[in-house]
Amino acid sequence: LADNEVLVAVTIDVDADSILAGQGARLSSLSRTSEAQFGVRRGLGRLTRILSEREIPATFFVPGFVADEYRSALGDIADGGHEIGHHGYFHKDCSALPIEEQRVEFEKGMEALARTFSVYPSGYRAPFFELTPATLECMTNAGLEYDSSCMGDEEPYFEGANGLSILELPVHWILDDGVYYAWNSYGSGVRGSAALWDAWLGEYQAVRTEGGFINLVLHPQWSGRRQASATLSRLLDHLYAADNVRFMTLHNVAAQFRLSADHRQLLATVTEE
Amino acid sequence: LADNEVLVAVTIDVDADSILAGQGARLSSLSRTSEAQFGVRRGLGRLTRILSEREIPATFFVPGFVADEYRSALGDIADGGHEIGHHGYFHKDCSALPIEEQRVEFEKGMEALARTFSVYPSGYRAPFFELTPATLECMTNAGLEYDSSCMGDEEPYFEGANGLSILELPVHWILDDGVYYAWNSYGSGVRGSAALWDAWLGEYQAVRTEGGFINLVLHPQWSGRRQASATLSRLLDHLYAADNVRFMTLHNVAAQFRLSADHRQLLATVTEE
Amino acid sequence: LADNEVLVAVTIDVDADSILAGQGARLSSLSRTSEAQFGVRRGLGRLTRILSEREIPATFFVPGFVADEYRSALGDIADGGHEIGHHGYFHKDCSALPIEEQRVEFEKGMEALARTFSVYPSGYRAPFFELTPATLECMTNAGLEYDSSCMGDEEPYFEGANGLSILELPVHWILDDGVYYAWNSYGSGVRGSAALWDAWLGEYQAVRTEGGFINLVLHPQWSGRRQASATLSRLLDHLYAADNVRFMTLHNVAAQFRLSADHRQLLATVTEE
Amino acid sequence: LADNEVLVAVTIDVDADSILAGQGARLSSLSRTSEAQFGVRRGLGRLTRILSEREIPATFFVPGFVADEYRSALGDIADGGHEIGHHGYFHKDCSALPIEEQRVEFEKGMEALARTFSVYPSGYRAPFFELTPATLECMTNAGLEYDSSCMGDEEPYFEGANGLSILELPVHWILDDGVYYAWNSYGSGVRGSAALWDAWLGEYQAVRTEGGFINLVLHPQWSGRRQASATLSRLLDHLYAADNVRFMTLHNVAAQFRLSADHRQLLATVTEE
Repeated sequence: LADNEVLVAVTIDVDADSILAGQGARLSSLSRTSEAQFGVRRGLGRLTRILSEREIPATFFVPGFVADEYRSALGDIADGGHEIGHHGYFHKDCSALPIEEQRVEFEKGMEALARTFSVYPSGYRAPFFELTPATLECMTNAGLEYDSSCMGDEEPYFEGANGLSILELPVHWILDDGVYYAWNSYGSGVRGSAALWDAWLGEYQAVRTEGGFINLVLHPQWSGRRQASATLSRLLDHLYAADNVRFMTLHNVAAQFRLSADHRQLLATVTEE
Repeated sequence: LADNEVLVAVTIDVDADSILAGQGARLSSLSRTSEAQFGVRRGLGRLTRILSEREIPATFFVPGFVADEYRSALGDIADGGHEIGHHGYFHKDCSALPIEEQRVEFEKGMEALARTFSVYPSGYRAPFFELTPATLECMTNAGLEYDSSCMGDEEPYFEGANGLSILELPVHWILDDGVYYAWNSYGSGVRGSAALWDAWLGEYQAVRTEGGFINLVLHPQWSGRRQASATLSRLLDHLYAADNVRFMTLHNVAAQFRLSADHRQLLATVTEE
Repeated sequence: LADNEVLVAVTIDVDADSILAGQGARLSSLSRTSEAQFGVRRGLGRLTRILSEREIPATFFVPGFVADEYRSALGDIADGGHEIGHHGYFHKDCSALPIEEQRVEFEKGMEALARTFSVYPSGYRAPFFELTPATLECMTNAGLEYDSSCMGDEEPYFEGANGLSILELPVHWILDDGVYYAWNSYGSGVRGSAALWDAWLGEYQAVRTEGGFINLVLHPQWSGRRQASATLSRLLDHLYAADNVRFMTLHNVAAQFRLSADHRQLLATVTEE
Repeated sequence: LADNEVLVAVTIDVDADSILAGQGARLSSLSRTSEAQFGVRRGLGRLTRILSEREIPATFFVPGFVADEYRSALGDIADGGHEIGHHGYFHKDCSALPIEEQRVEFEKGMEALARTFSVYPSGYRAPFFELTPATLECMTNAGLEYDSSCMGDEEPYFEGANGLSILELPVHWILDDGVYYAWNSYGSGVRGSAALWDAWLGEYQAVRTEGGFINLVLHPQWSGRRQASATLSRLLDHLYAADNVRFMTLHNVAAQFRLSADHRQLLATVTEE
C-alpha cells in the first residue's frame, strides 16, 4: 500500500435474524429474534446515516436470507455508493456442515444478492469467521476477488488450501464489535464501548506512523445501538481528522492492492509455492 | 414522545428465590437461596427508599410466587405509588416450556397479583427476557397494554407474532444490572459498578440532545446491595438534575405514547402489515 | 453493631490442593496442583506477615486435609492470635453430595482441626459457598456459633432451614478474591487487582458514614501472590487509617453481635417464626 | 538471586497451528488455522525485531511440529542468540493422554529440535501449562535442567512427583498474554492491552524494591499483533530503563540460580524430603 497511508475499511455484517431463521427458531423467543431484528429495524439506518454524513463508503456483507426478507430496509445500502458482499444465506457455520450444504449456502447467497441488489459480489465474508476449503473452492469457481474472514496477517495476503488461493483482506476478533457487545450464546459478556474504543484507537495508533490496513467489523444490532453508535461516530471523526487516513470499500482496497508492488511480490511467493 | 424529552423508566424485577422455588431447589444450597432472598430481605427496602427520597415512581415486576410468599415485604411497593407488573409465576424460561405450561405460568401469575395486590397489571416482562408467541397470545387475550421484554428498537414499537401484536417498551442487556453483577450460572463474571455506570451514563449521553426512552432494569438482589445502590443513587441524582428528564412508570410511558403522533404513525404501519 | 462503626473481618480460606486431593487428582497436573499449593508454600506466610505487621487478627478457614497435610506450614496461624474455622475436609461441594457424605466431610473436618490445632472451632464456612441443610444440622448439633457462607443480608442475621437456625456472618462474591484472580474451571477470567480494589473500596465507601460489617474473603493462592498482596496491603492501610474501622475475627464479631440490641431484636423475630 | 535484582525472562511459546495439526483439523476452518499461523507468518518476526532492537535475549519454546513445518520462518530465533526450549510436538494436553502417548510427544519434540536447530534443549514448558509426572520422568531421564510450567512459587524452586524433582522456573496465568487476548475455545473473552499492561506493571512494581524473578509468557499470534506489540515494547522500555532489571534466558536464570545460596538451601530441603 502507499507510503504511510492508513486504509480503513468499514465493513458491516447485516446478519439480522438469519441465524434464527436458518434454525427455524424465529418464534422460539421473540426477545432474541427482536434483538437480532434491531439491526434492520433501527441499527442499519443509523449506521448508513453516520456514514453518509461523513461521505464514508462501506462494505455491507448481507446474508441471502436478509436480502430476500428485508429488501426495502436495505435500500439505503444500494443507494449510498456502498459495496455489497456475500455473507452466506442463513449465516451458517460452514465448518460444521457437510460439503454439499456448504455449496448450497454459497449458491443461494449469490442468487439472493442478484435478486435483491442485481449485484455480483466481488468479495465474501464467512459467517462466524469460519472459512472452509469447500467455500474457498466455491469462491474461486465464482471468480470472487477477495475473502475477508481470515487472520493470518494484518495486511492483505493470499490465503489458500488444496492448491487454491485468494486475496485475503484480513479481520481480527479484537476489531469486531460483537466481542464487546454480544451477550448470551455467542458472546462472553458485555464489555462495553470503552473497551472497544481502546481496541479501535490502539489499532490506529499502532499503524499511524508507518501506515497499514484496518478492517473494522460492525454489526447493526450492536454498533447500531445508540451509545455504541456514538462511540463509532467518535472514532470515525478521529480517523477522518487524520492526514493519512483513507476510507475505502474492500473492493477498492483489493483493486488498489492489485496495483501495488506488494501485490506483485506476494503473488510471486504464492506462485513459487 | 415529546421534543427532546428523556423518559426514564426505573423497572425492578423482584425475582427473589422464585427460580429455585420453581425447581424445588430452595434447600439445595442455602447460600444460593439466601443470595436470591437478599432481594426481599434487604435490597427491596433499600431501593424503595432511594426512590421515595427522590419521589421517583417505578415499575415492579413481581413473579406470582414472590407475591404469594413475601406479601408483607412487598408492602412498600403498593404503598409508594409504584406500578406492579406481571413477571410469570416461578420466573420460568417460557421458550423452553410446552405451550400449556406457558399458559399456566401466565394465569397463575395473574391470580397471585390479584390475591396479593388486588392488581390487574397493565404490562408484562418475560422472565429471562424470553417472550414467546404463546405468552403474547395470553397477554392480548388478557388485555394487557404493553410488553417490556424485547429489543427490536430503543423507542416504543409494536412487537408481534402470528398476527397478534402489542406495544413494546423495549429493554436491552446493556442496561440490565444482572449483566454487571451476576455470578455463576446466569452471569459471565462480576464486572462491577464502574462498568454499569459507564453503560448507564453512556445511554443518557446518547439521548440527551434529541430525547428518547431509557428503560433501566434493576434487581433488588444486585442493585439493592450497598455499593451497587450507591451507584444507582448517583445515577438518579445525575438524571434528576437534568432539565429534560422525566421519570415515569411503564404504564404512564405507554399512556403518553398512545397520545402521541409517533403512535398513530406506528399503528398505521402495523395495520398495513 | 456500634454506632457508625465499621467492623472488618479478614477471612482467609486456606484451600491449598484439598480439592484435587479429594478427587485423587493431585498427580494429574503438577501445574494445577502447584498453583493450589502456592497457598501454603508462599501465600500464607506473606498474608500472615501482612497481618502481623498491622496487628490485624484474622479468621482462617482450614479444610481438614490441609490441617493434616501441611501442619508445619500452618504454625503461623495458630501462633498469631488468629481464629481457626471449619472449612470441610476435602473442600467438597456438599450441595452435590448424599447427606451421609456431607456428614462425613463435617466430622472429618472437626477431627482434623482438633488433631492439628487442638481447636474446637466456633464457626464454619461452606466450601464453594454451598451451605446445605444437612451441614446446618451438623453445625447446630456440634454447637457451632456461626456460619459464614450465605448472602441473605450484609449485616449479621439468622439463616435457617427445617426449623434450625444459626447466626450468619454473611459473605458475597463481590468481596471474594477468587472472582477477580481465578482462571480455568472455577473462574471466569482474570480481572485483576484494579477491579478488586474498586470492589473493596466501593464497599467501604458505602458503609463508612453509617457503619456496618465487611467480610473480606481471601485465598492464599490468589491474594498471597506478589501483586495481589500489594493491593491487599494498600486496602488494609487505607482502612487502618480510618477512625471508625475495627478489625475483628468472625468469632469476635459474633460475640459482639450477641451483646447488641440488634441481636435481641433479630432473635425475637426468629423465635416468632 | 542477587540483592534486589529483578531478573526478567521473556519467554515466547511459538505454537503456530500445532494444536490444529495434531487434531488433523488444519482444514476445518481456514480462519482459525490462519489466526494460529499469524504467529509464524508475522508475529514472530515482529517480536524478534523488538527484542534485537533492545538486545534482549529470550527463550523460545517451539513445538516439534512447528520446528519441522516452519523451519525457514524460525531462522531469526537461532541466529539471534536466543534460547530454544522444548514445548512438546503437537502442543497436546498431556494431562489427558495415556502415559505412552505423553512419552511419544516428548521424544518427538526432542528429535524435531535436534533436526531443525541442532539443539539439545535445557528446559521444557508443558503445553497448556499441564505438566504431568510422566513428562517429568522424561525430563529427568533426558537430563533437562529446568521446567517452566508450574505455579507453586514466584521464585525458582524444586517441583517434584514420585521421588523425582526438577528446578522449576515458575509461570503464572496473570503474566500470560493469552489470558488477555485469546478468543473462542481457549479464552474467556478479549480483555485487551490495558489489562495486560496493568498486570505486567503491577508485577514489576511488586518486586522492584526487593528484587525477584519475572517470567513473561508471550505468544506470537497474540503479542505479535500490532497493538499488542506496542504494549510489549512499552513494557520492555520501561523495564530497560530501570537500574536493577536484567533480561535473561531461562537457561541463564537456571545457571545463575545454581550458583546462589538460595539454591544450596533449597537443594538441602529437597534432599531431606
